Order: sequence, then C-alpha cells, then structure tokens
Amino acid sequence: MSAFPDLYAFVVELRPLGNGPAPRPQGQGAQALFLDLVRQVAPDVSEALHADAQSKPYTVGILPSRRRDVVLLRVSLLHSDLFQPFVQALLRQMPGGELRLGQARLALGDVIGTPPPQGHPWAGFDSFADLYARVTPAHTVTLEFASATAIGQGSRADGRQRLNLLPTPEAIFPSLGRRWNDLAPQDLTFDMEQVRNASLDTMVSHHRIESTDISLGKGPQKGFVGIVAYELPADPIQARILTTLADAALFLGVGIKTARGMGLCRRMSNAG
Amino acid sequence: MSAFPDLYAFVVELRPLGNGPAPRPQGQGAQALFLDLVRQVAPDVSEALHADAQSKPYTVGILPSRRRDVVLLRVSLLHSDLFQPFVQALLRQMPGGELRLGQARLALGDVIGTPPPQGHPWAGFDSFADLYARVTPAHTVTLEFASATAIGQGSRADGRQRLNLLPTPEAIFPSLGRRWNDLAPQDLTFDMEQVRNASLDTMVSHHRIESTDISLGKGPQKGFVGIVAYELPADPIQARILTTLADAALFLGVGIKTARGMGLCRRMSNAG
Repeated sequence: MSAFPDLYAFVVELRPLGNGPAPRPQGQGAQALFLDLVRQVAPDVSEALHADAQSKPYTVGILPSRRRDVVLLRVSLLHSDLFQPFVQALLRQMPGGELRLGQARLALGDVIGTPPPQGHPWAGFDSFADLYARVTPAHTVTLEFASATAIGQGSRADGRQRLNLLPTPEAIFPSLGRRWNDLAPQDLTFDMEQVRNASLDTMVSHHRIESTDISLGKGPQKGFVGIVAYELPADPIQARILTTLADAALFLGVGIKTARGMGLCRRMSNAG
Repeated sequence: MSAFPDLYAFVVELRPLGNGPAPRPQGQGAQALFLDLVRQVAPDVSEALHADAQSKPYTVGILPSRRRDVVLLRVSLLHSDLFQPFVQALLRQMPGGELRLGQARLALGDVIGTPPPQGHPWAGFDSFADLYARVTPAHTVTLEFASATAIGQGSRADGRQRLNLLPTPEAIFPSLGRRWNDLAPQDLTFDMEQVRNASLDTMVSHHRIESTDISLGKGPQKGFVGIVAYELPADPIQARILTTLADAALFLGVGIKTARGMGLCRRMSNAG
C-alpha cells in the first residue's frame, strides 16, 4: 500500500435479540441503522451523509445469508473522512450494545474489515490511487451481484423510469465509471467515452442471473442478482480500465440506490 | 383459422434402442436426422433444405427433458410446401422404424402436432396471416428459451463474432422481426425501424436465465436458456408488433443456428 486507504468495506455481524420480530434482511432499515450509528458519534458527518449528494460516499446493504442467527450488514466507505466516525461508532457500541434494523432488535457481533483468507470476501480496504496503479488487465472478469441491482437508463415514452435488469457490459461498466469519477481524486478519473467504447467491445461469456425484488419502504424495487463473466477487449488499455472498475465494484456498488441496499457487487477471484 | 396453415411445430418422440451409446440430447445430430427423414420421401425438397439459405424455412432442436427413456425432437416448418414431405416421411417410418441421432439408434414414437390441452406446449400450427390478424396486444409477454440461444451482433475489434448472451429486448425482437420478414408473405412484413423503436421502449421485468453450451460438432457454442418477461410499450401499435413476434417465436426460433438445435423459444401462456 502506498496511498493512504480511502476505500473501506466492512462486514458487521448483527445477532437478533429476544423474541421480537425477525429482521427482514432487505430494505431501507440498513441505511437507517448505518446513519444512526454514525450520528451517535459524529452528528455533523451524519448530516453530510443525509444530504442528497449526486453520488453518496458510502454504500449500505445486507448480504445474503443462509444463517438465521445472524444478519450481515455490509458497509463501504468511499472517503477517508468517514472511517474514523464509523469505527468510533462501532467501538462505542461494543460490547452488548443494542441496535435496531426496522422493528428487530440486534446485538452487535464481530466487525470484519479484512479480506480473505483471514477476513471476509465482502470486506477489505484499498485506495483509489493504489487500485488504479496496481491493476493487471484481465482477459475475463467475473462479477457477483449479491443484492438487487438495477441500472437507471433515462425514461420511457410514458414517462416512467427505464431500468435495466440485465447486466449488459454497456450498462454495468459506464455505471461503475461514473461513480468512480464522482468519488476518485481528480487526477485518476476516466474518460467516459473511453469507458463506453471499451464496454461496447466487451462480451458476456457466462452468466447465471435472476430478477428479484427488494423492499425499500415505498413498495418493492426490481433488480437482478447472480454471477456474470465478462470477456474484456483485447486492447490492453481498454482491458485495464474495465479491470480497474471491476476491482472497484467491491467498494462502489453498481447502479441505483447503493446506499439503500441495492447493487452489492464484487469481482470474484479465479478461485471463486 | 381462415388462412391455410403455413406454420407447423411438431414434437417427435424418439426412444433409444438396444444397448448402443445413449443419445446426446444436443447438437447437429438432430438436423441430420430431420434432413434424412425428408430425403427418404422428397429428395428434391431435402436438397433445397440443405441449400445455404439466408433464413432456413425450418427449425430443429431437442427439447430439454428429465426423462431418459425418450428424446423429444422438435421440428418447426415455416413453409406449407414442407408439410407434406415431412409428414409422409414420418408415416413411412411408422411403426417400428429405426432412426439415428448421432451414434444412437432410436425408434419413432408419437408425433405430436397439436397444442395443449390435448397436445404439447411446443407443438401447434398456425399461419403468418392468422397470427398477424388475430393478435391481441399484450402488456407483458413472457418468453421461454429452452435451448442455447445467442444473437449475432457483428464482429468485435479483434474480428471475432460478437454474440449477445443476454436477452435484451433490442436483441430479441429485431431478431424475430428479421426472420419473420424473411419468411412471411410480402404483405405482412414489418418495418424494421418500427420493430427496433418498439424494442427500445420495452423493459425486462422478470427473468431467470443462465448461460450454457451446446455441442454443434465443431466444439461448443455458447448460448443462454431461461425465462424472461418483457413489459411492452404502452403504444398499442408497438405492443401489437412485439406481441405478434412473441407469438411467432414458437415457429421461428430466435437468434443463430435455429436449424441446428439453438434458439428454441416460445411465448408462455399466463398459466405457464
């Protein structure tokens, strides 16, 4: 690591308490919980996070899990200023603190901030600068979409929002590119025309996906989950751009409402 | 039915014989079997079918099945001239005739030519004219892709064929439209610009799909299978065009190599 980390991904274990209602592992409750945590130690930061920024400097979601005794809250922070308040809030809660996810009461468990083999596939830390400098252009990148993901694509003739529920390269990579450009240091931004051209020369080579609904308070929101392999362009510069964006997906998330549970995404290693 | 049927879809049951190799339910063997059948009674027609037409007036594939004691050969005929030779060939085989699918020996079983409830979801008959005249514009159409499906989309920068393995509306409906226009009577053809515009205003609302391989002799060919629901444009003329094409998919097939096992597709009824 040469640059100071400005990208963090945490997996926070939450254990349902008592005999209240079971936590519903979707929805806006996760965002409220995250903002509550931060508010406790840094009201000013919390205020800034609430503000309706174009591209929020964090993502919050619930990881899919087969276990019923634990909810895995996933938080990523995309600005180094957020790290201290968030960790402080977690430390203040430990041990035995109680949190709320919707109607459910939860106890804070482990907080995992490191990647495998010690940590968790959805945890890690990095920096925009290191990620950019370190990347090796790949022939193929495989992305896992773990929570409902949808890409906004303007409006239909009838005025309704047009959502893309298929992970086409020309939807996914420009979405990542826009978010990277919104949040990365100025000197590391990508030429969006180049990102679009690279995505147009990318093919989907394998996939297993399905549409799903996520509850966000105002009724269900559609998205897709699953695994998609992209065969990147032969051109090494194009491949490098898209590989960088694939690596950054762990922190950035993909598509709409990544602060409210949608668009959890990571590049899978060759080992899975 | 007012117009004479020129669209037929048959499901031909084939039962593996003796202790030869088990039939591999994919690949070019199905096409060879179909052409052999026709050659026996109508060498001239068979010759015409072999010819490298832009859009072959038939499709051949193997339906997915959990049963090991029967192979379901699916044949569609898109020109009334083909009906007589094909049925004649089948009659000549019955009963007890032997056929070959690759290395496997097969006995001809039932030939199903009618739709449910009596028949089979992949069987039926219709005409371009009736289909065109009868259609009721739908809000949503759901397509089942039952064998590896891929849409050709020109070439990549490195010269390799660019294949679309995702059922985007703008790939699926223009593909059906081109095939309809190649085979339907002249006065029933669609304006392709209109088909494209209608597909651009169509959204995928549900799906469950995965990529798969089909063996076509020269190594595996990639495609996808699964179920996709399309929300058609509110405009009734656009909805009508796309509904017609969805209904015709049962006979036309979708995408590349529909004469060799790929692109088996049908519109699902609301009942599934």
